[in-house]
Amino acid sequence: MRTISESRCFGGVQGVHAHASAATGTEMTFGLYLPPAAAEGQRVPLLWFLSGLTCTHENAMVKAGLQAHAAAAGLAVVFPDTSPRGPGVADDPAFDLGQGAGFYVNAARDPWAPHFRMWDYVADELPRVLAANFPVDEERQAVTGHSMGGHGALTLAMRLPGRFRSASAFAPIANPTASDWGRRQFAAYLGPDEAAWARHDASLLMAETGFSGEVLIDQGASDQFLPLLRPEALAAAMAERRQPGAFRMQAGYDHSYFFVASFAADHVAFHAERLAA
Amino acid sequence: MRTISESRCFGGVQGVHAHASAATGTEMTFGLYLPPAAAEGQRVPLLWFLSGLTCTHENAMVKAGLQAHAAAAGLAVVFPDTSPRGPGVADDPAFDLGQGAGFYVNAARDPWAPHFRMWDYVADELPRVLAANFPVDEERQAVTGHSMGGHGALTLAMRLPGRFRSASAFAPIANPTASDWGRRQFAAYLGPDEAAWARHDASLLMAETGFSGEVLIDQGASDQFLPLLRPEALAAAMAERRQPGAFRMQAGYDHSYFFVASFAADHVAFHAERLAA
Repeated sequence: MRTISESRCFGGVQGVHAHASAATGTEMTFGLYLPPAAAEGQRVPLLWFLSGLTCTHENAMVKAGLQAHAAAAGLAVVFPDTSPRGPGVADDPAFDLGQGAGFYVNAARDPWAPHFRMWDYVADELPRVLAANFPVDEERQAVTGHSMGGHGALTLAMRLPGRFRSASAFAPIANPTASDWGRRQFAAYLGPDEAAWARHDASLLMAETGFSGEVLIDQGASDQFLPLLRPEALAAAMAERRQPGAFRMQAGYDHSYFFVASFAADHVAFHAERLAA
Repeated sequence: MRTISESRCFGGVQGVHAHASAATGTEMTFGLYLPPAAAEGQRVPLLWFLSGLTCTHENAMVKAGLQAHAAAAGLAVVFPDTSPRGPGVADDPAFDLGQGAGFYVNAARDPWAPHFRMWDYVADELPRVLAANFPVDEERQAVTGHSMGGHGALTLAMRLPGRFRSASAFAPIANPTASDWGRRQFAAYLGPDEAAWARHDASLLMAETGFSGEVLIDQGASDQFLPLLRPEALAAAMAERRQPGAFRMQAGYDHSYFFVASFAADHVAFHAERLAA
C-alpha cells in the first residue's frame, strides 16, 4: 500500500491511498478519513461511503461534507473507488457500464470477468487492507452510499449479516432488476440468469430477508432520476417487512451532492449512535 | 441573465447563473447560494467567496462546505469565476496566468486588456447584477476568499471603504508584489510600473490604510505554498497597524479545500455576527 496524499481536515487526516488489489487485478485507490480520535491510540468505528456512477474515490471525499460530522463523532470514513480502472481494463462508451460503474458485483462474463469484482473488493479485500494498516475497529462498521453506491450499501448490508451495525443510503438505485440502471448492467456483468440478479437488488433482498439493524433512506422528491431509482419498490418492501428504520422523502431535493451534503449530518449521527451502543 | 441550474441545498437553493458581462466582454458564470431565509420575502446579507488559481465558480461551491453554515446564519454566498473565459479570450500555458488566474485586477496591457477586468467585474458589475436579480441586501455585505481569492478579498475590502462590514481570508496570497504569485502576473497585466502593483497588495494596503472593520485570516502551517503566500508580511502589517481582528496559524493544515472546509464554520460565524449588528 502506498499513500498518495494526506491533508489535515477537521483536526483529523484525509488520506488517499493505493494498493495492488488481488480481487480486481489492478491498482485500486481509496480515500480514508481518520478523525482526531484515531490519533489518540484507539481503534475507531468505520463508516463506508460507496459512491455512484462516474465517481472515483474522490467525489464524495471532496463534495459530501462528511468529515466535519465524522470528526465530531469519532468515526473513520472510507471512500472506495467504483470500479477497476486502467488501460488493460474493459470499458464501454456508456457512462453507466464499465469503468466508473462497477455496480458492486462480481462479473461472470467477458470482457468484464477478469477485473470487475467489486463485490469481493468491497466485501472482503478492502476491509482486510484497512484493518491491517489503519486504527479502525472491524467490530464496529456501518455502511452508506449514494445512488449506485446506495444500491451497494444496502445489498452488502443485507447479504453480510453481522458485518454492519447500521445501513443507510442517499437516493439508492433501489430496484435495479426493474430499471435501466440495473438490467443492462446485470445482463452484461452477470449474464442472462435473472436469479443471479436478484441477489443484487435491495428491494428484493428487503422483501426476502431485510436487515438486522436499522435502515435510514433519504430520497429527493425532485430527483431527476426517480424512474431509474424506483424508491417506491424499496419503501414498500421496507414497510411490508416491518424493517426498523426510516424512509424519508425530502421535498425539493435533486440527485446532486448538494442533496447528499444536506443530509450528511443526519446519516453520520444515525450511524454514530448505533456504533457507540 | 440566465439560470443554468438550481439545486436545493440545506433548505435553500444553490444556483448557477450566467450573464453577459460589460466589464469583461464575455459571458460570466457565477454560483449563488440563497439560504432558506431568502424564500421568506426578506433581503438577506451577502457573503462573497473569491476563489483561487485554476478555479471556476464551481470549486468552492462544491468543496468548501459553506452552505450548511450560511443556511443556519441566513447568509447568501456568491461564488464568482476567477477570470473571463472562452475561445476569444487571451490565455497562457502557465496555470497561474490568464484564464483561471485573473488576480482581481483590471489589465492595462495587451493581450489581456480587452477582457481581463476582474476588479471592475467583482467590485462594480456583479454587485449590481445580484442586487437587481436576487433578494440580497447591498447594505450588508462581507467578503472572503482562498489563496488568490484571499488576495482579492482583502484588497477589495481595503480599497472599497464602506462596502464590506467584515473581511476574511483562507491562506491568501498576502504580499504579491514580493512573490512569484504576483510579480509575473502584475507585470503582464499591469505593466512595469510597480506603483500600480502596490494597490493590489494586501500587506502594503494594510500598512497604508488597514480595514475599517475586523479581519480574520486563517493560514495552514503546513501549506505547501507558504513561500509564495508570504503570510508573515500580512501578519506583521496587521500587528503594526493595530488592525482589529485575528491572524491564526493552523498547525498541520495544507493549502487544500480540506483546510478551507475545516474553518468554513468559523468564517461564516465571524461574518454573520458582524452582518447582524
